[in-house]
Amino acid sequence: MTPFARNQWYVAAYAHEIGHELLGRTVLGEALALYRTEDGGAVVALADRCVHRRFPLTAGRLDGDTVVCGYHGFTYDTAGACVFVPGQKRIPRTARVASYPVVEQDSLVWVWIGEPSLADAAAVPRARHLDSPGMVTVSGMEPIDCDYGLLVDNLLDLSHETYLHGGYIGTPEVAETPIATETDEGAGIVRVRRHMADAACPPFYARSTGIEGRISRTQEIEYFAPCLYLLHSRIAPVEDDSRAFHTEITYAITPSTEGKVYDFWAVSRDFATEDEEVTTFLRDFNHTVVMQDVDALNLLQQTLETEPPGYQELSINIDAGGLAARRILARLAEEGEKPTETL
Amino acid sequence: MTPFARNQWYVAAYAHEIGHELLGRTVLGEALALYRTEDGGAVVALADRCVHRRFPLTAGRLDGDTVVCGYHGFTYDTAGACVFVPGQKRIPRTARVASYPVVEQDSLVWVWIGEPSLADAAAVPRARHLDSPGMVTVSGMEPIDCDYGLLVDNLLDLSHETYLHGGYIGTPEVAETPIATETDEGAGIVRVRRHMADAACPPFYARSTGIEGRISRTQEIEYFAPCLYLLHSRIAPVEDDSRAFHTEITYAITPSTEGKVYDFWAVSRDFATEDEEVTTFLRDFNHTVVMQDVDALNLLQQTLETEPPGYQELSINIDAGGLAARRILARLAEEGEKPTETL
Amino acid sequence: MTPFARNQWYVAAYAHEIGHELLGRTVLGEALALYRTEDGGAVVALADRCVHRRFPLTAGRLDGDTVVCGYHGFTYDTAGACVFVPGQKRIPRTARVASYPVVEQDSLVWVWIGEPSLADAAAVPRARHLDSPGMVTVSGMEPIDCDYGLLVDNLLDLSHETYLHGGYIGTPEVAETPIATETDEGAGIVRVRRHMADAACPPFYARSTGIEGRISRTQEIEYFAPCLYLLHSRIAPVEDDSRAFHTEITYAITPSTEGKVYDFWAVSRDFATEDEEVTTFLRDFNHTVVMQDVDALNLLQQTLETEPPGYQELSINIDAGGLAARRILARLAEEGEKPTETL
Repeated sequence: MTPFARNQWYVAAYAHEIGHELLGRTVLGEALALYRTEDGGAVVALADRCVHRRFPLTAGRLDGDTVVCGYHGFTYDTAGACVFVPGQKRIPRTARVASYPVVEQDSLVWVWIGEPSLADAAAVPRARHLDSPGMVTVSGMEPIDCDYGLLVDNLLDLSHETYLHGGYIGTPEVAETPIATETDEGAGIVRVRRHMADAACPPFYARSTGIEGRISRTQEIEYFAPCLYLLHSRIAPVEDDSRAFHTEITYAITPSTEGKVYDFWAVSRDFATEDEEVTTFLRDFNHTVVMQDVDALNLLQQTLETEPPGYQELSINIDAGGLAARRILARLAEEGEKPTETL
Repeated sequence: MTPFARNQWYVAAYAHEIGHELLGRTVLGEALALYRTEDGGAVVALADRCVHRRFPLTAGRLDGDTVVCGYHGFTYDTAGACVFVPGQKRIPRTARVASYPVVEQDSLVWVWIGEPSLADAAAVPRARHLDSPGMVTVSGMEPIDCDYGLLVDNLLDLSHETYLHGGYIGTPEVAETPIATETDEGAGIVRVRRHMADAACPPFYARSTGIEGRISRTQEIEYFAPCLYLLHSRIAPVEDDSRAFHTEITYAITPSTEGKVYDFWAVSRDFATEDEEVTTFLRDFNHTVVMQDVDALNLLQQTLETEPPGYQELSINIDAGGLAARRILARLAEEGEKPTETL
Repeated sequence: MTPFARNQWYVAAYAHEIGHELLGRTVLGEALALYRTEDGGAVVALADRCVHRRFPLTAGRLDGDTVVCGYHGFTYDTAGACVFVPGQKRIPRTARVASYPVVEQDSLVWVWIGEPSLADAAAVPRARHLDSPGMVTVSGMEPIDCDYGLLVDNLLDLSHETYLHGGYIGTPEVAETPIATETDEGAGIVRVRRHMADAACPPFYARSTGIEGRISRTQEIEYFAPCLYLLHSRIAPVEDDSRAFHTEITYAITPSTEGKVYDFWAVSRDFATEDEEVTTFLRDFNHTVVMQDVDALNLLQQTLETEPPGYQELSINIDAGGLAARRILARLAEEGEKPTETL
């Protein structure tokens, strides 16, 4: 099981998912109750457990900007302080639930899991294309019942497009073409680049761009461990490189509980931005592709759970990015376990 | 997990549930096969496991007053002695299943879980109103997938009526009004009293009694640990205290296996006893209320199972009854573990 | 839990189940990918786990006689050697999945689980009637969620026919009649014989043979541990012993993972071999009988899982065959654990 890295920012939701009602998400094993204040302003993230008997606050309701527990009515303000308890006037000093630092940026809602005093909003990685005027984005989220490390592996090695997503986004050239990998261990960034000079055009691009012949295709992955994954994709007809199309594919990989991960996905484009048919096509088509991953990773997780301890893997060149990511995640997890004073 | 208290009486079923056929119930982790003899007389409670290969006897059938195992035909009399085995005439001396002491009283079937020689029928607590000529009772049973201690907590702290059962039996005054708690540690009895001098009348009482305005309302809980819970309820119009209505609400809290409990519930009244509409209303309405508890406690159990070990609770005045009950249950469990000789 | 015996032959499938497509079966905890080569010839059994990331090969596809992993395209030949990896020409020397010895015989596909060099095709026990010209066979397979030892117990003690299969294959005489048991510990064979000189004819035989009155009935079990079970059945009218009918009933008991077993069953006859109605009747009727065992064993397994450790059984004469089988299985399991060098 890939260890969890605390003291990091994670995507808990898309901004549009959070309104003036309670939404439950569990990140790094911590249950969160998310909501937006009545004035439509700030996003609040509280621990989703009443201090009284641990009843989930998300099973209760909002009263103005306070959260009322659905079992005995303990009530909390946006900072997590208890402001009402039943049967008595005095509210115990310790009656308070944890409140999590939140950053809303680029249409994503990030929460800081770890020591709140260490949260640095400036360190949240950017995905500006998700919220940029010239781009159109389709997006979704699928929970997967697998170790989040399996999703990191999956996304950092796109050779699987040929086999798992053949007829959708994969063509033989993806698996055949060697990759170049670059790791910035200190910054926690992995870059993987693949350039196919003369490749078949998969339906994903043929139907969205209208290109009919063969293409030159470049995939540039940037993985900002632990959560944000960007795939900068460029395609152009082989015969006219100036007719290039750019697509930004975004994933946020948010570990939920052990063996469960939220797979946030988005496809952003700067072409045919007014074309609703292309938008609908890309949303449906990429959802299908994501579900192929979901099915495969659910199966892989179930398989690994039946393997004897100490089972072997065999890594080759295509795994360079994934292995680099694992090293970085192991380091981040270790750092996240250190007592705060020593940081 | 609240420990199980052995050497105690528990409600295994309502009397009307047991006829001349096999009924399976598991109490304190012990699987029971219950049936009534052919003459409609005594209730028999045998261990629900054939001595041969542990096949459940309840998957077999009755032959007169004997129980025939459905796998290889081992047959037992009402005392649990084996009277037939296949393929041979000689019946091994040790071929016998445990037989449990049973008391049928107040329309309840109580079984003694523990050392049979310690069973004292006179110690079974009474709930005479369940079987009293002037009263009409509606009742049911719901299994809940939770530690039985969560149901004890639930019933001893009625402030939750305001939130979990608002619009049914709860009004704001229940949560607002302080309680008085009295504990008889030696006898294992907890009493919790709440008097609301001027309260809204919840639909449960408004529709069954016809009262239209505000009421004075008294709740008197008597909990006879570990199994029997009585709530003596009195309501009267604020303007005329002499027009009082009495309702007896009974629960039997029977631990099944770890993390599972039988929730037997009954509502008895001495008014409108001929009125079928009131009877139907109270049965349906209280069933709905019980299902609100079932849903909440299933959820709470699932939540607690994901909590890290050593999670905190925060108790306030309303929890006095529940905390007293926990202390008594811990003592009864400890006493029930002692070897019989030292008792 | 009955221990698994390695270095033994097990039935993985019926021959007719395996064509030119991937079939997954798990035997003794080892996941197998089974297929027949394109020319319809040999059956191939490979470990169902890609060396790369343990993805199940059965989720991939055949390409000619090679198996292509559905995740990243690692490709294996019939001997398990990797012949293609993505993104590079060089194939690592260690890229190879285990290949299992296979014997196809008597319409069964046997695999050897253990050290391949010890596999002796001549040691596969015979069930010639399954594939013999004068016989007609109906067959099927049901997975059961139980320890395979429970199925061995079940089949070696047919007194259960009277109770579990009463009205199908059981009559009172089966449970009443003592058995004779013979064990060849060295060869790992248990024989159980029961002769009923004057017995009711159960529907299974009455409807397939047309006999209307009472019968003499002989059951001769031969159990070749760990996997093959034969029941030689002979019935004849009491008044004319020369009008005998022979039925061969075959079971293969193949442990899958812990707590799961494949129950292969077949009924072969040398009478009414052209009669389609009899064939259909025996297939449907025996399937019903098998499902009665499946239901009982699923229930028994669930029951045993809730029993406290060290629960007791009580064995009598009818259990002699089952107990002998347990002793042999314990010895075979122990021998199968020995390091190969010392064998």
